[in-house]
Amino acid sequence: MIAAAIAETLAAIRGRRPLVHNITNLVVTNTTANALLALGAAPAMVNSTDEVGEFVPKAAALVINLGTITAVQAAAIRLAVAAARAAGVPWVLDPVAVGVLRYRTELARDLLAFPPAVIRGNASEIISLDGGADGAGHGVETTATPETALPAAGRLARSSGAVVAVTGAVDLVTDGSRTTAIRNGDPLMARVTGMGCTATAIIGACLAVQPDAFAAAVHGLALIGVAGELAAERARGPGSLQLELLDALYALDAATLEARCRITA
Amino acid sequence: MIAAAIAETLAAIRGRRPLVHNITNLVVTNTTANALLALGAAPAMVNSTDEVGEFVPKAAALVINLGTITAVQAAAIRLAVAAARAAGVPWVLDPVAVGVLRYRTELARDLLAFPPAVIRGNASEIISLDGGADGAGHGVETTATPETALPAAGRLARSSGAVVAVTGAVDLVTDGSRTTAIRNGDPLMARVTGMGCTATAIIGACLAVQPDAFAAAVHGLALIGVAGELAAERARGPGSLQLELLDALYALDAATLEARCRITA
Amino acid sequence: MIAAAIAETLAAIRGRRPLVHNITNLVVTNTTANALLALGAAPAMVNSTDEVGEFVPKAAALVINLGTITAVQAAAIRLAVAAARAAGVPWVLDPVAVGVLRYRTELARDLLAFPPAVIRGNASEIISLDGGADGAGHGVETTATPETALPAAGRLARSSGAVVAVTGAVDLVTDGSRTTAIRNGDPLMARVTGMGCTATAIIGACLAVQPDAFAAAVHGLALIGVAGELAAERARGPGSLQLELLDALYALDAATLEARCRITA
Repeated sequence: MIAAAIAETLAAIRGRRPLVHNITNLVVTNTTANALLALGAAPAMVNSTDEVGEFVPKAAALVINLGTITAVQAAAIRLAVAAARAAGVPWVLDPVAVGVLRYRTELARDLLAFPPAVIRGNASEIISLDGGADGAGHGVETTATPETALPAAGRLARSSGAVVAVTGAVDLVTDGSRTTAIRNGDPLMARVTGMGCTATAIIGACLAVQPDAFAAAVHGLALIGVAGELAAERARGPGSLQLELLDALYALDAATLEARCRITA
Repeated sequence: MIAAAIAETLAAIRGRRPLVHNITNLVVTNTTANALLALGAAPAMVNSTDEVGEFVPKAAALVINLGTITAVQAAAIRLAVAAARAAGVPWVLDPVAVGVLRYRTELARDLLAFPPAVIRGNASEIISLDGGADGAGHGVETTATPETALPAAGRLARSSGAVVAVTGAVDLVTDGSRTTAIRNGDPLMARVTGMGCTATAIIGACLAVQPDAFAAAVHGLALIGVAGELAAERARGPGSLQLELLDALYALDAATLEARCRITA
Repeated sequence: MIAAAIAETLAAIRGRRPLVHNITNLVVTNTTANALLALGAAPAMVNSTDEVGEFVPKAAALVINLGTITAVQAAAIRLAVAAARAAGVPWVLDPVAVGVLRYRTELARDLLAFPPAVIRGNASEIISLDGGADGAGHGVETTATPETALPAAGRLARSSGAVVAVTGAVDLVTDGSRTTAIRNGDPLMARVTGMGCTATAIIGACLAVQPDAFAAAVHGLALIGVAGELAAERARGPGSLQLELLDALYALDAATLEARCRITA
């Protein structure tokens, strides 16, 4: 039943080609655009304080990623989320390396006030955004598991009003009362940069067509998880995985989602 | 006959390895450099107001792309096109999303004064740059066809002195009096980000060895069109298309161009 | 014997997953991160004056690349190398296009005072950084060979205290008294952008686990050289080479290094 709902979200993305506005990091600018195009959305990367206020209202969803944040980009992000709130454009926050660096931690906490529809991060990022510290953050990675971050994720969801997705070997999505687990994906995905950022962007594409933010987060993580495990089966390493992931996102269909999705409430 | 002329341009690029200076957007910086290298040119991305004035005169052509424009990059672009005019370096303009956003629309119109040798855009961008509005722009994409933009393209060519290339299912090149159509390429190319930007950069490589700007635009679009359709035949999706496109640009030869080019005046 | 030492360095990278902090150019941000991940390191790209001072001491090595330098990035780099010196974090300098452009040439010379553990460049870049001029620089490329730069490399090593690696058809590593040559790699690598930048980043990963900077430079160049020639054997062009290089870095093992390394003192 959930697989059918995910297939409907995918069909809506392909049918409507929603404009997904990304303000993201320098590492994944190209790969994010390609993942969104392969899935069927219409990505755009507009990054300037001179343009984001005008562009956000045209978009069906906004993706904010702090991976290579600078003061100039932070100013554009502040304008963008204010415009999103004013225009009712749903947005998703990727708090890359929050908790590791003070500047972006403070920025991410400020942004919660606008608020995002969904927050997607790894365990350390979610714990840090909730105000805690697990000491497991390692640059942009973490050694902590989503399960350890679930209490923090629930608190963060309740305090911010956002749906919170904590990703890792198992992905957890919570709104502070109910929680869903997605058990798709493959460990090889961790050897390609920006897989978490891609997951966030795909959640953004789902938000563009799916007003239920909880469903959008679950559907987005299932889409990249299933595509990622298909890609890993075909890949010989992280280079071929990248290519195969885009081809798999492009080819995803309802039958594959039905056969592959491992999702439990 | 036209295929032989395109093969000569390609041979000149491979033989002279012209330095092609790109000031381009964050999405395509890597893929533009790789496409130019695969073709045989020597790309360089120099982006700073502290350096562009010194670098432009060393280059054989300059490529200006507004895809992720900021005020800082706009300042560098203004210096670069002034240096190009002063040094006689031909340049090509890619007015990404002009018409969708005011800031870049005004910038692009300012840049026409320097003027570019070639302008390459989609139908909405060309119509907007000519001062019109078709309302078909969708982020960086459009739903309008090159044919609908041909009157605007002709006016823009006559007013600016630039050759204007409007790309889509069929690519049209006009100088305001004559028009040539290139019917190569494949619809799958639209599922890879920056294919238009790559086309613009390849036109830049052609301009570096081919003083006739009309020929450079036609040859550049034929080169990426033929490589793109070869790549699409070998690809299983947009991921493999990217790889195959670079391999196809690298392997292009006169016989393939002769067999594949579909160009009509 | 040297192959066994390289395999030990590789095993240490994979075992410790060192955090490698990169401040690099816009062309290679994604590919550098992916090469480091494929090898087994944990890359991070932190680029802001608001964050680099806090991040550098957390890293096991720092990679500085001047490829698309701007005044804003130069300020971040100056803070980063000062933090690296203060915290004892080894760093490697990639002086892209130094000698071609004054701004970056002056910056690179300033940075020598901090000093880097390793400098990796092409022949023209090393000659220019030593204060000479060969006139063979062509944008970010050169027509000069590492052999012609060896006297300059030796002087630069002695004056700066850094190990100097000059790369080309044959790679040379010198500390000003002894020199080692690495004869791996493949000419097709020159048709993919940023292969030199990737070599520099891999040297950074080696520095993170190998306190002997001379060994780190030799080992890093051997790792990318062997992976690159394996990739070239499997590739049909520069597109497939990129994919195969990442897969080869991921799969590298002691037996392959033993069979392939061509290194002479």
